[in-house]
Amino acid sequence: VALLGASAKAGKIGNVVLRSLARGPFKVFPVNPNESEILGLRCYSSVSAIPGEVDLAIVALPAQETVDAVRECVDKDVAVVIVTSSGFSESGEEGAKLQSELSSVLQGSRTRLLGPNTMGVLVPSSQLDTLFIPEDRSPRPSAGEVTVLSQSGAVAVSFLEKARKFGMGIRACVGLGNKLDISESELLRLFAEDSGTKCIALYLESFKDGGEFIDAARTVTPQKPIVILKSGRTPTGSRAARSHTGAIASSSDSVVDGVLRQSGVVRVYDEEELVDISRALAHLDRVDGYRVCVVASAGGFGVMAADLIESSEHGVGLSMAALSETTIRRLRELVPAYSSVLNPVDLTAEVNDSMYDSVLEVLQRDNGIDIILMSLELQPPRVTKALVEVAIRRSRDASVPIVVCAFGTDTAPDVVEELEANRVPVYPTIRRGVKAVSALCQRGTYLRRMKR
Amino acid sequence: VALLGASAKAGKIGNVVLRSLARGPFKVFPVNPNESEILGLRCYSSVSAIPGEVDLAIVALPAQETVDAVRECVDKDVAVVIVTSSGFSESGEEGAKLQSELSSVLQGSRTRLLGPNTMGVLVPSSQLDTLFIPEDRSPRPSAGEVTVLSQSGAVAVSFLEKARKFGMGIRACVGLGNKLDISESELLRLFAEDSGTKCIALYLESFKDGGEFIDAARTVTPQKPIVILKSGRTPTGSRAARSHTGAIASSSDSVVDGVLRQSGVVRVYDEEELVDISRALAHLDRVDGYRVCVVASAGGFGVMAADLIESSEHGVGLSMAALSETTIRRLRELVPAYSSVLNPVDLTAEVNDSMYDSVLEVLQRDNGIDIILMSLELQPPRVTKALVEVAIRRSRDASVPIVVCAFGTDTAPDVVEELEANRVPVYPTIRRGVKAVSALCQRGTYLRRMKR
Repeated sequence: VALLGASAKAGKIGNVVLRSLARGPFKVFPVNPNESEILGLRCYSSVSAIPGEVDLAIVALPAQETVDAVRECVDKDVAVVIVTSSGFSESGEEGAKLQSELSSVLQGSRTRLLGPNTMGVLVPSSQLDTLFIPEDRSPRPSAGEVTVLSQSGAVAVSFLEKARKFGMGIRACVGLGNKLDISESELLRLFAEDSGTKCIALYLESFKDGGEFIDAARTVTPQKPIVILKSGRTPTGSRAARSHTGAIASSSDSVVDGVLRQSGVVRVYDEEELVDISRALAHLDRVDGYRVCVVASAGGFGVMAADLIESSEHGVGLSMAALSETTIRRLRELVPAYSSVLNPVDLTAEVNDSMYDSVLEVLQRDNGIDIILMSLELQPPRVTKALVEVAIRRSRDASVPIVVCAFGTDTAPDVVEELEANRVPVYPTIRRGVKAVSALCQRGTYLRRMKR
Repeated sequence: VALLGASAKAGKIGNVVLRSLARGPFKVFPVNPNESEILGLRCYSSVSAIPGEVDLAIVALPAQETVDAVRECVDKDVAVVIVTSSGFSESGEEGAKLQSELSSVLQGSRTRLLGPNTMGVLVPSSQLDTLFIPEDRSPRPSAGEVTVLSQSGAVAVSFLEKARKFGMGIRACVGLGNKLDISESELLRLFAEDSGTKCIALYLESFKDGGEFIDAARTVTPQKPIVILKSGRTPTGSRAARSHTGAIASSSDSVVDGVLRQSGVVRVYDEEELVDISRALAHLDRVDGYRVCVVASAGGFGVMAADLIESSEHGVGLSMAALSETTIRRLRELVPAYSSVLNPVDLTAEVNDSMYDSVLEVLQRDNGIDIILMSLELQPPRVTKALVEVAIRRSRDASVPIVVCAFGTDTAPDVVEELEANRVPVYPTIRRGVKAVSALCQRGTYLRRMKR
């Protein structure tokens, strides 16, 4: 791995990236004509001076010096070059000229380029970390199953931050930048083949090639879920996207929306949903219908969940399952006399771990239920942390999947991580749980349609 | 303060409440005919045995014993009785009968009753805490300016949990329960007169008396903002509300919606929004229009914010402000050459604290801007925690209010609390910040309309 623009100055991108690379298992070659050694590593005056082959080069130089630097890499036949520098097509005419020069340099070569204007790449499982934001400002998540491709560095970083909060791991995080060469479509196909990736999360401000994207998405989604946050939806958003990443909105958002729907891509609308939904789809890839059952010990959450599930205006417009007579009779024996055994099932503050366990068992046997939203409240007096084990055990019963909304975790922060580690999608609010349920149902419907 | 059903058994409601009361500055009288002393406090066999007047009695007994207990309180001329017991109108015919008996007992007396089926009352500033969920399961927030009235105990507890996370204080938290006597309308009027309350947050599953509510809301909202989460909106939600708190939906949700709008009540749709929006309205009670300006150092967040602000379908449908020529010229001198000085203003990763400060100053002088959404990212290399002081100082300049979305606070958790303590509304996602901006604009419009 070569780093062009390696720097001895703390805080400089060329220093941040060098530190991260040096921690990994790679042979690292800092390139800087003015230094002989940085961080104890021998410095090279140019890429051509590096002995042997170079698989990956990172260019962290001002835009003006970047064209020559990439030319050096092409001459050395470097496989992949990551250009972090900004100041290209996202920044006016001069930048656009530089970017087209960059493009000419690549022509006819085997060298592939990521960026420019990319925040880099993170692959926790292989300790590859070229992100230019240091770890103390943006702690990295552990290795996991979701791959993030992002046209914005900040959205990628916020993804990593939010993922960590849930103890959620990352397979790879790739900053797309201006997509001069390597495109989102190519990466979609690449990660579709990657057995370590269970779900691909995308932040895009534009499509490099709409037709290519549709083709790629249609190929990938029958095997793996894709979740997209496509911004630049509105006139102002679209204009802002242009000056941010040089993105040119190809068509109206309603066209984009229709295409995404047909391609089986799940669309979300903010950076939190992107994390929430890709987490759910990485864990649970199969829901057989739209009939949701809600269980809560807090009646208020049951009511709110029912509203958010049924309402199309302020909600997701799914169906609340009608429980079978057998289910109702069985539930009646399990819950307090005054509680409701219709859907939402209200366990009341009398709830205890084994009551919750038995109730879930009964519900999972009801053929009229496709998915269960479990409001897991840790505050009622007879509930213990063993309720978390109940949720995990019942989730392994694949017959009816469970999405959990967890409350009272302030005094038990490990609860969320334990659920996540056991592939149970868990959310801190009813709305976020309901949205995950909705995405899972949408994915299930798409997969059923594909089978026909 | 008398506690009927005081218990020596840890975990029992009568024990939880006694412990909390004993910590406060009150004279506490446990009532339990079978004990002589609990937690070192002398026990009384009945309310009538308590010497002197009783201002407040809490009844934590099974439903069947509650009617007699309340009768005792009425005979003693207790001012207010809080009945935590459940098993009344929310739980079928028998419960409804008990509730009407309770009602007869009150008739003709001066005693007022909160509940039944209420989780109690919390007033941090006077150390009054009758909540039946112990502090180790639900840590209490500090004293503050938002009063919460909730028909669901769990929603109230989740409010307290979420408030604490932001270092947000609470003026009072009142569980409404079945609203046999004391109603939401009466409490609205009460807290409207309370100088310590800056905003009232309501969770309701039904209105005790629709007409009375409208009257109360219309009286209160010109002075103080009311935020409501009204659930039981859908057929299933409404049926579930009936069995949860005995709530009977009086009219269709679209009627409710129209009435709330006319009465100047801000409506929200989940438990997180209730906290978010009441926090914003407690801090900022005045926005003069709908023209929003977005500033971000992360271009992606700027684009997303613009989308969420402009879009009516997946967003709030406000306007992105058109910056004046003067503003644009001034900004051009402050930000990097390649960044956009249109709205959203993009400070790029080159941002530093003083650049952000100067940019905010320029924007606050632009008459075409009514409110600023500031994306405060702590990850860029030249940003320090002093940027928080910038946000606070610029927020004090009341000319154009600022709502902050803060990113990268994982490594600086005190940032959120510092902003909150200085009355700067702060949110962890763009969407939540945009929704706060929208609620503030809605409130501003209502106040302008009222003045006419």
